Order: sequence, then C-alpha cells, then structure tokens
Amino acid sequence: MPRFPLVSPVLAQTGASPYSTLAGRLAQHQGRVFPLHVGDTWMEPAEGCRMQDLSVEDHPGMHRYTTPHGMPALREALAHRVEERSGIDTTPDDIVITAGGTGGLGALAGALIAPGDEVLIGAPYWPLIAGIVRSFGGVPVPVPLVGSVSTPDEAVQAFSECSSPRTVAIYLNTPNNPTGVVYPRAWVEAIVRWASAQELWIWSDEVYEDFVYRGEHTYVRALAPERTFSAFSFSKAFGMAGNRVGYLVGPSQAIGQVLKVSTHTFYSAPTAGQIAALRALGPMGEAWIAEAFESYRDLGRSTAARLGVAEPQGSTFVFLDVAEHLDDRGVDGLLEDLVAKGLLVAPGYSFGPYPTHIRVCFTCAPPRIVEEGVDVLARHLGR
Amino acid sequence: MPRFPLVSPVLAQTGASPYSTLAGRLAQHQGRVFPLHVGDTWMEPAEGCRMQDLSVEDHPGMHRYTTPHGMPALREALAHRVEERSGIDTTPDDIVITAGGTGGLGALAGALIAPGDEVLIGAPYWPLIAGIVRSFGGVPVPVPLVGSVSTPDEAVQAFSECSSPRTVAIYLNTPNNPTGVVYPRAWVEAIVRWASAQELWIWSDEVYEDFVYRGEHTYVRALAPERTFSAFSFSKAFGMAGNRVGYLVGPSQAIGQVLKVSTHTFYSAPTAGQIAALRALGPMGEAWIAEAFESYRDLGRSTAARLGVAEPQGSTFVFLDVAEHLDDRGVDGLLEDLVAKGLLVAPGYSFGPYPTHIRVCFTCAPPRIVEEGVDVLARHLGR
Repeated sequence: MPRFPLVSPVLAQTGASPYSTLAGRLAQHQGRVFPLHVGDTWMEPAEGCRMQDLSVEDHPGMHRYTTPHGMPALREALAHRVEERSGIDTTPDDIVITAGGTGGLGALAGALIAPGDEVLIGAPYWPLIAGIVRSFGGVPVPVPLVGSVSTPDEAVQAFSECSSPRTVAIYLNTPNNPTGVVYPRAWVEAIVRWASAQELWIWSDEVYEDFVYRGEHTYVRALAPERTFSAFSFSKAFGMAGNRVGYLVGPSQAIGQVLKVSTHTFYSAPTAGQIAALRALGPMGEAWIAEAFESYRDLGRSTAARLGVAEPQGSTFVFLDVAEHLDDRGVDGLLEDLVAKGLLVAPGYSFGPYPTHIRVCFTCAPPRIVEEGVDVLARHLGR
Repeated sequence: MPRFPLVSPVLAQTGASPYSTLAGRLAQHQGRVFPLHVGDTWMEPAEGCRMQDLSVEDHPGMHRYTTPHGMPALREALAHRVEERSGIDTTPDDIVITAGGTGGLGALAGALIAPGDEVLIGAPYWPLIAGIVRSFGGVPVPVPLVGSVSTPDEAVQAFSECSSPRTVAIYLNTPNNPTGVVYPRAWVEAIVRWASAQELWIWSDEVYEDFVYRGEHTYVRALAPERTFSAFSFSKAFGMAGNRVGYLVGPSQAIGQVLKVSTHTFYSAPTAGQIAALRALGPMGEAWIAEAFESYRDLGRSTAARLGVAEPQGSTFVFLDVAEHLDDRGVDGLLEDLVAKGLLVAPGYSFGPYPTHIRVCFTCAPPRIVEEGVDVLARHLGR
C-alpha cells in the first residue's frame, strides 16, 4: 500500500524512457550529432495537413474538446479506409481515436487485463508495450519469434511454451519494430488460429502498415475480428508523431470498454490533430506516403548494405547483433563509445531478451545525417 | 482473468462519459440548442496562440515527438510561473507536461495507487476523478465537503471518518467543479495538516486557479510540497481544451515515477499544443485570461441571479439542488424534459452522492446562448 513516500509497487519493474541519460550526453556533444535512436521521421507532414493550415475561421471551435471517441467525420473516414484495405466490414463504432498508437494500446491494456494477468509478446518487440502491460498490473511475457523460429509451427510452439493459465492476450507487431521484418502471412494465420483456440484476445500493432518494401502486410483483424484490436497511428503513416493521433479498430462492444480507460487517461485525442488527420486521408496524404515510402525503402537498403545486414522488409529500422564488438561493459559500453562519436542508437535489451543487439532508425534524421551516422557505426564495427 | 470475451473486472464499475445518450438526442433536436453540460469555453484561444500561428518555417520539426517530460522551454517557463504564483521553490524537474489535467491525474493514479487502495475524494467532485482511480484498480471514496461541512474541524472530521487502513491519498479540487465554491484557506490548511499526519499523498486539482471571483486561491503544494501534486491545465486557463496540454507539479523524485505511467498511456503531450502553451504564457495569454475572467464572472453572476442560487466564487459552474422539481423518474427524467427543450445540463450523480442536483456550465457556449439556456432552465423550474 503506497502511502507517502511510496509509489505503486508495479512501477519498480517499469523503466522510464531508456534514452534520457545518453540523449542528455548527446545534447552536450561537440560536433555533428546523429540521433538515430528514436522511431520518427525527418519529413514535415504533407502541405495542407500542417497546423498552420488549420484556422479558426475554417474550423470554429477547433481548440475545444471533441468527444472521447473522436471526431465523427474522422471515424467515418477511417472505417471506409480500414474496410477497403483489410477487406473486413468496419463501422465507425468499431473505431476509437487515441493519443497515438501508445494511447490506444495503453487503453487496451487497461481494458483487457486484470492485475497478474500475462500477455504474450512476440519478440523482439516495441519497447513501450512491456511497460504498458506493467502499468496496469499485468505481466509481459516475451515470446522470441524473429531470429528464433522459422516456420508457422515453430511460431505457435513458441507461444504455446510461454503460455500459462494466467495468459489473457497476445501482442503481435508487423511490420516489426525493431527488426524490420514483415511477419509471413502463414505465421500470422497459425498464431491467430492458436490464440483463438485458447480464447485469447489479440492485440495487433500495425502502425507500419504503409511501409512494407518486400512481401505484404497481413491485416490481422480480418482473420479473427471478434477478438482482435488493431492499433494504427498517424505518427508513422503521415509523419505526425507530435500530433498524438492514432486509432484502435476492434469489436464495437469491447471498444466501449476501451473508451472507459482512454477517457480516464488522456480524455480525447487532440482536436487539431484529428482535423489534420482527416485531411491527410485525402490525396495530400497519399502523395506524402508515396514519397516517404520510396525514400524510406532506399534508406533501408543503403543502411543495411553499409552495415552488412539483411535489408529491412518493412518499418523504419534495422536490428543487428553486435556481440562480437562488446567488451565487459556490454551494450551500454558500446552505446557510450558511440555517443562519444556523436551517434545515438537504441540498446537491444529495450526490445526483449536481446542484450547484444542494437537498433538503428534510418528515418529519424535527414538522409544525409542518417548516412553519415550509419557510416560512423559501420566504421566503429570495422565494417 | 479476462480472457476473450471478458474485460477487466474493475471496468464494470466505471462509467463512460455520462452524456453520450442525451447528447445524441440533443443533436437531433429541432430548434435552438443549449449544450451547457460540458466544462469548456466558447472563446477561441488568444490570437497568436492558435494552431494557424505555428508554422514549420518558425518551428521546424513541430510535428515530431517531444520528450515524454515535455518541451524543456515550457517546463522552464512553468517553473518560473508556478514559483511566482505559489511562493514555493519550483524547478523544471518538478514538472511534467501532460495530456491535459486528465492525463496528469491519470498518470498520478497509476503511479501512486495499488489495486484496492482507497483515495478520499472531496465531494462534490470532478466526475472523471472517480473513474481515474478505478481505472488503476483503486477505490474512490467520496468525502462530502461543500454543503456538508462548515468549519475546518468538520472538514477534517469528514475526511477522518471516511479513511481506512487502505487510504493512500486525498483529492482536493479548488476552485471547485461542480459547485463553484473556492475552498476557504483555513479548510485547506486543516485538511493538509491531517493528511500529512496520516502520511497520505495529496492530489490537488487546481485547473481553475485563474478563475476566482471572490476569495483567494490556495496553492496547496506550498503547504506540503513533499507530498503534494498539483494539476494544472491550459484547457481552462487559456481556452485550449482541444490541445490536450496540462501539467503536474510535484516532488521531482515521484515525478519520475509519474512519468513512467504517462509515457505508457499517452507518451507525451502534443508538440504543437506545447508550443502554443509556451506562447500563451506571455502577454497574449495574460490578456486573454483577463478578458475571460471578466466575462466568466459576469456570466456567473447573471446565471446565479436568474436561477436564484448563490453566486459562484470561482470556476465556471453552478450546482443546484432541484429535488423539489423531480418526479419518480429522478434527475434523469428532468434531464430528458430539458433536452426536449433543447437544453443539456449534467446530472448531480456524476459528481458524487448528489442524486437531486444538476450542474450548469456558464462558459461553454457564447453568452447569449448561455443566457437563453439558463432562462429555459429557470422557467422550467418556475423561477
């Protein structure tokens, strides 16, 4: 019982953002800096979809609350979009607009887990998902997939071995942050079949749906609509991370439960960001995605080539094992050495049991900076 | 254990936004409508502080993430502001920028309570605080204050009678939503002394600090800085509810714990909203507050006079007991009758054990609409 000065016991296991110390050191670095640790984009959003394009003359009351569900026009437009892309019936009632993908998955955790419940998390995973589960008293259980299994049967076996009577949900993220892998459709289908047989909820993080360079994106909700929540975000699709607008799509009855948590953790997504999102769903946004896609794909190729690793199939990351370059300080020591050269990357342990890996984001700085930063890394690794 | 299709058991007790059904009916109303149920403002934010005033030319990267703490320049400016107003030492490390006041209080609940812990809530209270406590497995315990106690000793006694070994925190909200009362300084001092002796955390919701028409605002953190978190919001102070930017001020070590929850429920406040907030802290925003203050004060007076209730001392609400006007349908019946006349107000039970009260917001529509809506209500009540 955390009376003053104690805090909630579950927080003891939850890390804050892992980069703050190193990022502070990078800010003091003399010389050129290469901040390749955050999953973001250097591109400004599409013209016509920026804050400066939204006026109170055109949008009276645009600084007031929207309903906690989100703007009706945006939910309507998204229902069409999701239905068209995923091939499954979708209505505005299946959608809630959230404070980015994070706000959506956070509200999902609050709605669907009770303290002590376990969530099976396909690994390597997006770092915040573990803390999200812990924030609501749940237990994140990593299930090593990429680099650990090679067939649908092995993927199912990995989940099965990690499950327990306390398991309530699974989390999948494809295209995958941090590995750049697009899960094969056969994996996803097999995992969804298994999860359905176990009566588990499925949390599907699809925020990189637009950035698949090889293979195809699998819309998970189409495989098990009654039990799947898919999280999407305008942060990744349209370069609007600072706007804090994303959306969850799932069974409408349970969406009502999710809304109870979202209302009590961020109330609603920002109004101006929602208006910008609606604009981005038109031709301006589509053109932006097309341009970003080509640029990201090319940067992914050149990054992988310079580092001597496999080309990313999707997302905006490469994830590499640097075990042979670590001394007894481990990956933190490598990160310190890199920061001394102006480069910041993310440590593998943020993404699950990967103590000898690092993640590089190849879109979070302008291409020239990314290329130079990647070159700093490659030289440091003797590549 | 909520496997599909079950959800978290704590949600069963948590209501969603209580207005959705009636608001839907109001939207279909033929004729003039008077939506006086939401705590918001009809005023656009100050010129120079609107989204249209923020360009990527002036603010490159303004659609990208900020750190989860919030923009350093904004935290710096707020530390000065809070120190100047409250008279207590405040550094940027004592501040985290949140997704409105709701995001701040939500993160506080996640950080400071464990499942089953009780939070004593001065009543009548802001409706979302009960759901916030429940969202993290806590138990909200209403402590009737306004209308129930008349001395500091009685206020302390009310808290004491409601406390238990599971009590971990108290919640105070002055200027008060929904009553329009500004808690007397002597009440606040006595309650804080008692809470300190009990080793409780203090959650102080001060989002209406700028709107005190009679009496003075008590900065609660100045009385017990080691254990008090004060929540503020640009929603109320500067008419920016849709921007979703607020801030928490509290002991820096515990702020670090709060940040763990905020990062996992909304990640960061919106970037553009933070830039707008920083601008509003200058002369443009001060002029806006001065104008809003006069207008709100006058509207509070005229609203109270027309309804025959006491003038609000602060905030943007009046709260009135309409017991004598209720039939066996209770307050919901009254609300239905009012919606049929185009008027929506908030039911007393949203604010604690007040089944025969209603709340009217006198700032959420332009003055002419408020006056007409209040007139509809007064006539309905035969006043």
